[in-house]
Amino acid sequence: MGTRDFMSLALKEAAAAGTRGEVPIGAVISLNGDIIAASGNRTRELNDPTAHAEICVIREAGSKLGSERLMNCDLWVTLEPCPMCASAISFARIRRLYFGADDAKGGAVVSGARLYTLPTCHHAPEVYGGFGEAEAATLLKEFFKERR
Amino acid sequence: MGTRDFMSLALKEAAAAGTRGEVPIGAVISLNGDIIAASGNRTRELNDPTAHAEICVIREAGSKLGSERLMNCDLWVTLEPCPMCASAISFARIRRLYFGADDAKGGAVVSGARLYTLPTCHHAPEVYGGFGEAEAATLLKEFFKERR
Repeated sequence: MGTRDFMSLALKEAAAAGTRGEVPIGAVISLNGDIIAASGNRTRELNDPTAHAEICVIREAGSKLGSERLMNCDLWVTLEPCPMCASAISFARIRRLYFGADDAKGGAVVSGARLYTLPTCHHAPEVYGGFGEAEAATLLKEFFKERR
Repeated sequence: MGTRDFMSLALKEAAAAGTRGEVPIGAVISLNGDIIAASGNRTRELNDPTAHAEICVIREAGSKLGSERLMNCDLWVTLEPCPMCASAISFARIRRLYFGADDAKGGAVVSGARLYTLPTCHHAPEVYGGFGEAEAATLLKEFFKERR
């Protein structure tokens, strides 16, 4: 599978999350071209404020691989990660981070705290933004428009 | 129960985590004077890089209370939270955060990114540092000394 396929799956997970009443964000973890984990946001379903899509896939991948360090794994997510998820991605030793839309209000990679640029950051993934950006942003806009 | 009792329990959870080979950090969540959740770090046990003590108690409390927002809950932790945990504490709407030792290298409350001071932070808890500081710092120092 290629870059476009992984982000397509993340977008599908985002849309599915939206239909469940969750904020429509989706994430995928791949290793050597295979999908290890895929999830949308699940904070409402699980009554768990930490159950962002990125955290869900990191937990699933760690459990599957039997390690808290996801060496050589790449993470795909439809929106720029928040500080919680950006930090978790660093702890998990994710190799490459691909994300869709920037999040000027809530992001912490290219926006806000820009955590990977801090001198105290032990591990920063390679970062690639703008994948599936338009579709990811549209999903979020429509979701919040319906709720206002 | 009072402030000192909650931090004592967090310190016990920290010490217990250390004896299990986890980084010795512990956390407690209280509501109206009762303990809702208590845990130490469990990243190794669960193969989950997100299983810091604070995340573990937030997940436990959310599950118990049936809500992703822990209204009126206070969180006690032996070390200044990292960006992942500081952000999760904000999402969980924790009312008051009490922590032990500052963490100049990994903290994100009074150190590093100081996340609660960012204009994009939606909810900042009241923050009280320095509770049980000496004991919390000693636990960590001894843990890492044994491993070097």
